[in-house]
This record gives sequence, C-alpha cells and structure tokens, in this order.
Amino acid sequence: MHSYAFDSEVVRYMDWRLKEKSGTVRNQTVPRIPANELRETGVTIFTRLGAPREYAELVVDMLIEANLVGHDSHGIRYVTRYAERIKNGIIDPTARPEVTNDTSSTAIIDGHWTFGQVTAKKAMRLAIEKAKKTSISAVGAIHCNHIGRLGAYTMLAAESDMVGFLMVNVVHPVVQPFGGASRVFGTNPISVAAPAGEEKPFLLDFATSSVAEGKVGLAAMNKEKIPLGWIVDNDGHETDDPLDFCLQNGSVGENGRLLSFGAREGHKGYCFSILMEILGGILPGAGSIIDEEVHLNENGLLAIALDIKRFTALQRFKKRMDSLFKKIHSAPVNPEFQYSDVQVPGEYEWRNREKRLTGGIDVPQPAWDEIQHLAAELNINSKLPSTR
Amino acid sequence: MHSYAFDSEVVRYMDWRLKEKSGTVRNQTVPRIPANELRETGVTIFTRLGAPREYAELVVDMLIEANLVGHDSHGIRYVTRYAERIKNGIIDPTARPEVTNDTSSTAIIDGHWTFGQVTAKKAMRLAIEKAKKTSISAVGAIHCNHIGRLGAYTMLAAESDMVGFLMVNVVHPVVQPFGGASRVFGTNPISVAAPAGEEKPFLLDFATSSVAEGKVGLAAMNKEKIPLGWIVDNDGHETDDPLDFCLQNGSVGENGRLLSFGAREGHKGYCFSILMEILGGILPGAGSIIDEEVHLNENGLLAIALDIKRFTALQRFKKRMDSLFKKIHSAPVNPEFQYSDVQVPGEYEWRNREKRLTGGIDVPQPAWDEIQHLAAELNINSKLPSTR
Repeated sequence: MHSYAFDSEVVRYMDWRLKEKSGTVRNQTVPRIPANELRETGVTIFTRLGAPREYAELVVDMLIEANLVGHDSHGIRYVTRYAERIKNGIIDPTARPEVTNDTSSTAIIDGHWTFGQVTAKKAMRLAIEKAKKTSISAVGAIHCNHIGRLGAYTMLAAESDMVGFLMVNVVHPVVQPFGGASRVFGTNPISVAAPAGEEKPFLLDFATSSVAEGKVGLAAMNKEKIPLGWIVDNDGHETDDPLDFCLQNGSVGENGRLLSFGAREGHKGYCFSILMEILGGILPGAGSIIDEEVHLNENGLLAIALDIKRFTALQRFKKRMDSLFKKIHSAPVNPEFQYSDVQVPGEYEWRNREKRLTGGIDVPQPAWDEIQHLAAELNINSKLPSTR
Repeated sequence: MHSYAFDSEVVRYMDWRLKEKSGTVRNQTVPRIPANELRETGVTIFTRLGAPREYAELVVDMLIEANLVGHDSHGIRYVTRYAERIKNGIIDPTARPEVTNDTSSTAIIDGHWTFGQVTAKKAMRLAIEKAKKTSISAVGAIHCNHIGRLGAYTMLAAESDMVGFLMVNVVHPVVQPFGGASRVFGTNPISVAAPAGEEKPFLLDFATSSVAEGKVGLAAMNKEKIPLGWIVDNDGHETDDPLDFCLQNGSVGENGRLLSFGAREGHKGYCFSILMEILGGILPGAGSIIDEEVHLNENGLLAIALDIKRFTALQRFKKRMDSLFKKIHSAPVNPEFQYSDVQVPGEYEWRNREKRLTGGIDVPQPAWDEIQHLAAELNINSKLPSTR
C-alpha cells in the first residue's frame, strides 16, 4: 500500500510555480520556487508569531497537502489568514490541546484555541489509538479553530487499516435550511476514508453545502459565473452570479445564501447539514450556530475510528474493496458525462497529487504576494525569489 | 419524553380504513377495520408459515409502524411479499440469529436468513447494550433479509439517550454510479436518530438513491408522472415517466436506472451510495453487489450506538437540541416552498403518526385484497370484514 500522508521529503525537492490567472494576476515570467524554501517561510512566519516549531510544521504541511490533492481553497493561502487570526487573538499558537472526559473508547479534546489542525490531528490520532484496543472509538473536540481539509485526518485512519469518520460543524452561518430563507448553518463538512488493497483508498470528503464558500469566492474574484444550485440571492431566487453571495475580493458578503448539497432536488443534503451540527457541535459540547456568543469560524468535531479486522478479515475486506472499485470503473460512461470515466471518491485527489508532485502547484499570485508581504513585515529574510 | 416505539395497545384500539385510490381501486363503501384484527391476521399468516409468534408479532408491528409514520411503501403490504419469500425459501422464519465475532464493543449477527427485522432489531439492541458499557459500539449483520424502515431501529437508540446510526446495503442493483450508465448500487439507505428534550427526536431516514423504488412503482400503478431527477431511461436521458423504470404493476422492470440523491447537481449523493455498500456490505462481510451469487434483496448492515452522556451532559445536549430545532423553525419560509414551514428531519414522521393514530391508515386496496386472499389460502378464519 502506498502512503498518502504528507511526505515532506518529496515536497522538499518539489518545485512550485506561479501561474498567471486570467484577469486576476499580472502578466509576468513565472518563477519556480523550491518547496523547501516556501515551506520554511510559512513555518518561520508561524514560529515568529509564537507557535512551537512542531505546530508550525504540522499546519504548513497540512496546507501544502491540500494544494497537492487539488483543494487550493484549503491550501497555502491560509498562511496569511491564520497569521491574521493569531494577531487578532482568534488562534493562540502557544496553547496546547488537552484531553478531557477520557474513557477507554471516547474522549474530548479541548483545543484551547490553538491551530485547529493541531487539535483535529490529535483527536483523530487518539481515536485511532483507542480503536486499536477497543475496536471502535469516538473523540470530540471543542475550542477548535479552522481545521482545513478533512480528508487529511480520515486518511490517517485508513492508513491504520481502519475506517475513519470526521464530522464537523462550522460556526459561520451561510447555508439556508431546506425551504427556509435565512442563513442558519455553516458549510459543515464530512469525511469518511477506508483502505483498499491494490487500489487507492476510498475518500469521501466534502462540505454538506452545495460547495465550499471558497469556490464561490474564487468565481467572484475571477469574474466567472457559477452553476445554478450553488446559491440563492436575498429573495431566494437561483442565480449564477457569485456577487449575489460574495464580495469582489472573494470574501463572504452579507447577501444571499448557500444551499445544502442537492437542495434543488430535495431535503436529503439538508439533513446532513443538520447532522453535522449535532455531531460536530452539540454532541461534543463545542460552539454551535445556536449560541449567542461565538468564536470566529469555530470548528467542532467528532472523529470516529473503526478497526476493520474486528468485523471481517482485513485482507478479505481489502480485496472486496478492490472488486468494488473495479465494478464501478467498469460501468459504461454516460456519453454526456463531463469526465471520461466513472470515478471512485478520492480519485480526484490521488490523480491531482500524482500530477502536482511532478508538475508543481499553482499558487495564486495574490496569495503569494500576501505571504511575501507578511514575511517582509516580520523581517523574515526570505530566500524566495521576488515575483515583482 | 414521549415514547415513539410501537405501542401495540394504542394500535389495538385504532381503527383502520380503506380508501379509494384514484384509478387503482374499485369504487366502494370504505369499511373500517379494527387494528387488532388486522394485526392478528398478519401474525397468524406468519405463524402458520412457521414463524415463532414473537417473530411474527415483531415483524407485523414494524410494518404497521411504517404505515403509522407515513411510509406506506414499507408498511403492511409487505405481509404478502414476505409470505412469498418464505414459500420460496428466501426467508427462513424458523431460523434464529446468532452472535459471532463478539467483543465488548463490537459483534456480527448472523441472521441465518430469518426475517430481516428480527436480525436488525437484535443488532441495534445489542449495539445499545454494548454502548451502555463501552460508550460507543458497532454491530454488523450478515445473512439478513429485508429489514424494512430503518428509522424504527435508530429510534431505539434515541429512546435510550444515544445517537443511533444504521447503514445498509441492498443487494439489488438499480442505481447508476455518478456519470455511469448501468445499474450498480442498491437503494442503500441510511438512518441516524438523536434525542431532543421537549421536542421530538431528530430522525434522518432515507435511501441514498433519489427515492425508494417503491415510490416509482406507486407512480407507475397510479399512472402518474414523476419528478425529473428520480430516474433515467436506458439511454441515460432524464424522464418523468415511471414506466421507463417500472412495470405497470409497480414492480421493477429491466429498463432504466435510479439516480443517487442530488445527482443532477453533483457527486455527493453518489458518494453516500458507495459508502453504504462499504459499511453495510463489505465491512461486516455481508453480501454485496460485487458478488456473483446473491441472495434476493439481501440487506447487510452496520449499527452504531453512541452514548451521549460520555461526551456532554445529557440534559445540556437535549436542551441544545431543542434550541437547534427552534432556530430552524424560526427561519423565514421561502414563499415558493411547497410546505408552510421549515421542518426538522423526523417531523414528517411524527406528524403522520399523530394524525394516523386517530384518523387511521390508508391501506391500498390491492394490498388488502392480497392479504385476504392469502389468509383464505391458508385457511385462516379471518374475522375481518370482506371488502368485496
């Protein structure tokens, strides 16, 4: 089995390149930037702002991994956002998560508002350790900042021959309930990962909203239309204009609402939006959209790990997973389908990772400029080539 | 807290009535049938076919409960279907489920092909008992026939102040993968239930296909159109004609395919179709759509129970659930919404139950005729009024 965890050795020798984006970036020669330098700049920014080096590395590596698998919305551009949140007291980079409510198969992690990645990784790691002994376990987290891309955590379970579940509420209401006309829920993502044998793991990993906010924001920045079914305007009407929801710089405005996934066809996606609020927020006792005082973008979470071999022989499970994937891949493709093949959840990510490990990652120019600006502000002697 | 488990005393004094359905039933005076008589007829049918009385009662009560909460597709009409399956050796009414792979927090139930309801209820009950000691538990089931409406089982957990999960694969391929053009997955349902305080429980309970097959079948019988997004025809084109998928009698034909829920808008529902196949089928070692030899409509399942009080104080959890529901109910309603209020998952069921406990249940005439015919065939001295 391949390892899909972030491999810093690989990235250390990987080249990054900046790419001109239509309309949003200046036309220029694209410099190639060594990944180790970029990583080091990110890590130095966070350590300079008070984070222990191990936390800074963990966070930056998680962000780079998101870029690698194709989710730039959750990638390296968050370095400057998190720096801003540290400055504003939202993230306490010196805090250390603490285990509470500990039983042999359950626990709560109090993140004490350190980086969400640190808390979430500790929660999933603890769930895996517990499930090794008790077959199934659940660990919740409270006082947790933005955790980034969920698949990075559930994959830790899959790599340990477990099924990993991660349910998250986001205390930032932008999604309307089914049939409603106000912002009630966050984008409330879910991820489930399970190993296969020869094939790469199954990885379900998405927001229970139609899309992540960031995709609407990106369309706004790029002056592109969006598909119907992503958002509605203030009057509840469908619209393909991202500016009915976002500001021109891509940040979330006061107008419009996201839909739960599949909400044009029925209530099922909406039921998962609520379920994430219950499992990620209310169950572990984390913040929720029902609270009057909220911490900016708090993520509550519940991580579940389930030891496959207690249910069925591990090799049989993996072989049958391979057979399932083969069955899916052998399905004839609808000629009108936008892709050339029927995919298993996760393949998008594995294909991107393979491609980007050799071809590099497109860092949007504004994100790059912001990182450089911040490094200069902190008097960090960046060895990175200037793009100006 | 109210009890939502099936209360046979209530139903014993409840009246049933037959209702004329447009086009499908003969015009006639509608007789009112005492529920205890109808229940007794169903139970007698199953005992006459070899089932122990306790199993017969359990199954019939589960079917009646499905009618009560408004899911007639999973209701009393299954009496004759199960009788047919007993005659064909699909259901072994004398078999008793057996616990295997037993650990303190996990187990597999081998149903030995008895009624699926017996196996599924035992699985959820065992999960609840285990979770009382170990905080979280998971019980799978194999060799399990059709289990009916999932919400009946997850509600057992909610009534025990737990979160109950039930994930099921159905080995009857009718659903196409996202972008594919062949029948690969079953309708693979999921249910999650969680208690509230003053409010009735949260109950997510649905197929991961666009709809249950039965709804397409019902439309075919009633010669009604169906919404776009439920099925595609053989060429993969959207259609509102249920006969592109079903036969005129409502049974599944050889043509067309169901979609995963929300599939017109994206892949997310499809990911849950696969997830149910993995968790319900492959994980416990039950039958799967990948197997060459299959048992008709086998249901594989995974039941998870999670003890709320190990994570947060139970009363706090329930109060916050009430607040969440109030928040949802207070959302303004989109004027174009088909209902007058924004609902919490489960309300459809609780409202129906309240209404039908007093007003009775509409038993479709064909289902009623079939039950009477079967009773006569088995020389059961039915006290039920004839509707002829």
